[in-house]
Amino acid sequence: MAAVEIIAAKRAGRTLSGGQLREFAEAAARGTWTDGQLAALLMAIAVVGLDVEETGDLVEAMAGSGGRIDRTRFARPAVDKHSTGGVGDKASLVVAPLAAACGLDVPMVSGRGLGHTGGTLDKLESIPGFNVELSLDELVDVVGQAGCAVCGANDEIAPADAVLYALRDATSTVDSIPLICGSILSKKLAEGIGGLVLDVKCGSGAVFSEDAEAEELARRLVASGNAAGLSTVAVLTDMSRPLGATVGNALELIEAVECLEGGGPDDLRELSLELVARMLVAVGSSESVEVGRETAAEALAAGDGRERLEQMVVAQGGDAGVLDDPVKLMGATEVLVVRAPRGGHVVGLDALAVGKAAAGLGAARQVQGGVIDDSAGVRILAGVGSEVSEGDGVLELLARDPGRLEPAAVLARAAIEIADEPGVPRGLVLGTIDAESLSEPTP
Amino acid sequence: MAAVEIIAAKRAGRTLSGGQLREFAEAAARGTWTDGQLAALLMAIAVVGLDVEETGDLVEAMAGSGGRIDRTRFARPAVDKHSTGGVGDKASLVVAPLAAACGLDVPMVSGRGLGHTGGTLDKLESIPGFNVELSLDELVDVVGQAGCAVCGANDEIAPADAVLYALRDATSTVDSIPLICGSILSKKLAEGIGGLVLDVKCGSGAVFSEDAEAEELARRLVASGNAAGLSTVAVLTDMSRPLGATVGNALELIEAVECLEGGGPDDLRELSLELVARMLVAVGSSESVEVGRETAAEALAAGDGRERLEQMVVAQGGDAGVLDDPVKLMGATEVLVVRAPRGGHVVGLDALAVGKAAAGLGAARQVQGGVIDDSAGVRILAGVGSEVSEGDGVLELLARDPGRLEPAAVLARAAIEIADEPGVPRGLVLGTIDAESLSEPTP
Repeated sequence: MAAVEIIAAKRAGRTLSGGQLREFAEAAARGTWTDGQLAALLMAIAVVGLDVEETGDLVEAMAGSGGRIDRTRFARPAVDKHSTGGVGDKASLVVAPLAAACGLDVPMVSGRGLGHTGGTLDKLESIPGFNVELSLDELVDVVGQAGCAVCGANDEIAPADAVLYALRDATSTVDSIPLICGSILSKKLAEGIGGLVLDVKCGSGAVFSEDAEAEELARRLVASGNAAGLSTVAVLTDMSRPLGATVGNALELIEAVECLEGGGPDDLRELSLELVARMLVAVGSSESVEVGRETAAEALAAGDGRERLEQMVVAQGGDAGVLDDPVKLMGATEVLVVRAPRGGHVVGLDALAVGKAAAGLGAARQVQGGVIDDSAGVRILAGVGSEVSEGDGVLELLARDPGRLEPAAVLARAAIEIADEPGVPRGLVLGTIDAESLSEPTP
Repeated sequence: MAAVEIIAAKRAGRTLSGGQLREFAEAAARGTWTDGQLAALLMAIAVVGLDVEETGDLVEAMAGSGGRIDRTRFARPAVDKHSTGGVGDKASLVVAPLAAACGLDVPMVSGRGLGHTGGTLDKLESIPGFNVELSLDELVDVVGQAGCAVCGANDEIAPADAVLYALRDATSTVDSIPLICGSILSKKLAEGIGGLVLDVKCGSGAVFSEDAEAEELARRLVASGNAAGLSTVAVLTDMSRPLGATVGNALELIEAVECLEGGGPDDLRELSLELVARMLVAVGSSESVEVGRETAAEALAAGDGRERLEQMVVAQGGDAGVLDDPVKLMGATEVLVVRAPRGGHVVGLDALAVGKAAAGLGAARQVQGGVIDDSAGVRILAGVGSEVSEGDGVLELLARDPGRLEPAAVLARAAIEIADEPGVPRGLVLGTIDAESLSEPTP
């Protein structure tokens, strides 16, 4: 009868104890509550809410439903970076090896894309042979070899989350802030890390399109992460337009390699340096963000991040040769160029519309477990801030199936906003939230 | 995807359309949503609420998930009475045949007891052979023969309700007012009746122990019932103490027969006359409650209600012979008399405690589908208002299993309140709510 009592307490607006939240997480992992009972508590939490302490307890409870790497198994300070998901967000592919090159161990448990957002695992799987299925022991081993590793969640890692996530997806409780915190942070806690940098996306392509909601999520994540013993900081970054110049799995892998070789688009490089700098600060390896950024920039310039990526690809069974000529990853694709309907300045490139176009081309799963086309995606020919003449190419759409081009072009055309005046695009980094800023009043 | 959208709309506080509520009820009846999805919407409704129009739509939708008797199949005005459930509440056993004797057709779909409350079906099943499993056609047939019939819900009658009720029981959403309305009224709508009198219980033994909540339930039931085309009125009655002088299945059947023969306790007779009078008014058969009460009292005095009960028992396969000597229904039982710990006036006999004691003796199911002992129960030897001396018997506990007596006696002792002064017990009928009173402001 514990289930009914716990559900009743939250329904009535009462605070749940750590023990009650542990019962819930254990029940999810072991199947001792019915799906109806789990869904009822998820909905009660989504509507009534959890306070900061309850959210921290939920994180601990969900992490405790599975195994947890002992922090001492890492030779160097272990720290991770997590993004709440966006369009063209390949930063993890740059950040993990670059942080490793800066003296950090990065055991990254990452996710797959769904809907209009891409997933780091899908991008890495465009490398032939790359294995994202690692046990916790294997994750530690790969980090020992390369300084970084990227794998998917599995039965060992916060098993309550997989059950609850599937239920949330079916019951419209995905965008509940405490449930998002539980899902993200429980998996991070299992990694055995000491610090965590969260990239919380704001804008049309993000989970929360409203900045205020994204900031609330960031605050709750930072509070709950710190409550659970992780030195946690959040960076709020723009997702009103895609990050970088490409959207799609192989396209983004290529772009990440370019970035690690010193090239690639400015915004990707800028964000990656910022995130690595904050990771260094989170575990005390750098005394300030400025110093951390210099360390990261030096490692990038020296090609050390590129080397760490190669080591990780080898350690995870991938064909590292493709990194030398990553354009090989692109299969034969059909192309359609979406052109500027008039001359002017590109002032907007809606992330959600571009993400949906890329998904429509085959770059992301439309349903869980769906098939993706690694070569499909969107190249941004004229990004926000560019000046264009009528008929100039703005977006290049790529797909193996030519029938997918025109429907995606409809979405892509709608994404483009051209004005007479250049406009002032908003900055990439919109703010940061750390443990100290939580005690300040919300602006 | 309709499920997710409908759940999301209610979670966000939006109004659901009749079509969306039909989708929900159909999904419950046909299994096209997962239990998790049904439970999530139940919880969202329990927390966010449904307005009066939505509640009416839910009633229609749940009724529409099954069959519905055409009103024209009844020769006389069809009307029913429903109680929200209490301790010692055998009024249906008196009201149905008495209303039939007054010219009404009463096709009553009733329920079983659970927890501390008794159920009309269980009481009737203490008559050997009595069959409560009737199809809708059989229900019409029995009413044609006897003027009244009592049966349980089945797959034909609002099948969505059985599924949703089981989920509500497991997910702590039983006491949601719109969900209670959906459950009660959908089954009543299936009966093909034109009028409905609701006996909404207030006090410790009722679903809602707070009068304000009971009144809110009564208001919502009356509003939704009228919205769904039923001439509906609610009578708010006291359930701080048990109704009548006995609690238990055979005990209550015996008491109901006594009442129909002109005897039995005053409160049971008074309530039964009040409810029949309101049934007569609801369908226009009596011009006022006073006139209706006279009609009912005359039928009672003439023994016409007793005759209708016998006809119904025969039509439903029961051994009508036991009605002539109903004490035969009591098996050999063990007895324990709970005595007054001191002299004074009995000013309280807590309905919840007495109900739990009766259940503990075997009179009610402790879990769904559990076994009951027809002979078990409680006889009230000294009711509220009685004067007692120390050592006088107040409650007589009856059970087949002697081991059940002492644990029940602990509850029974706690139910008894004795004071030096007589006190002023509250009246039986606390108020009435009809369509007109809904437009008045809540007191």
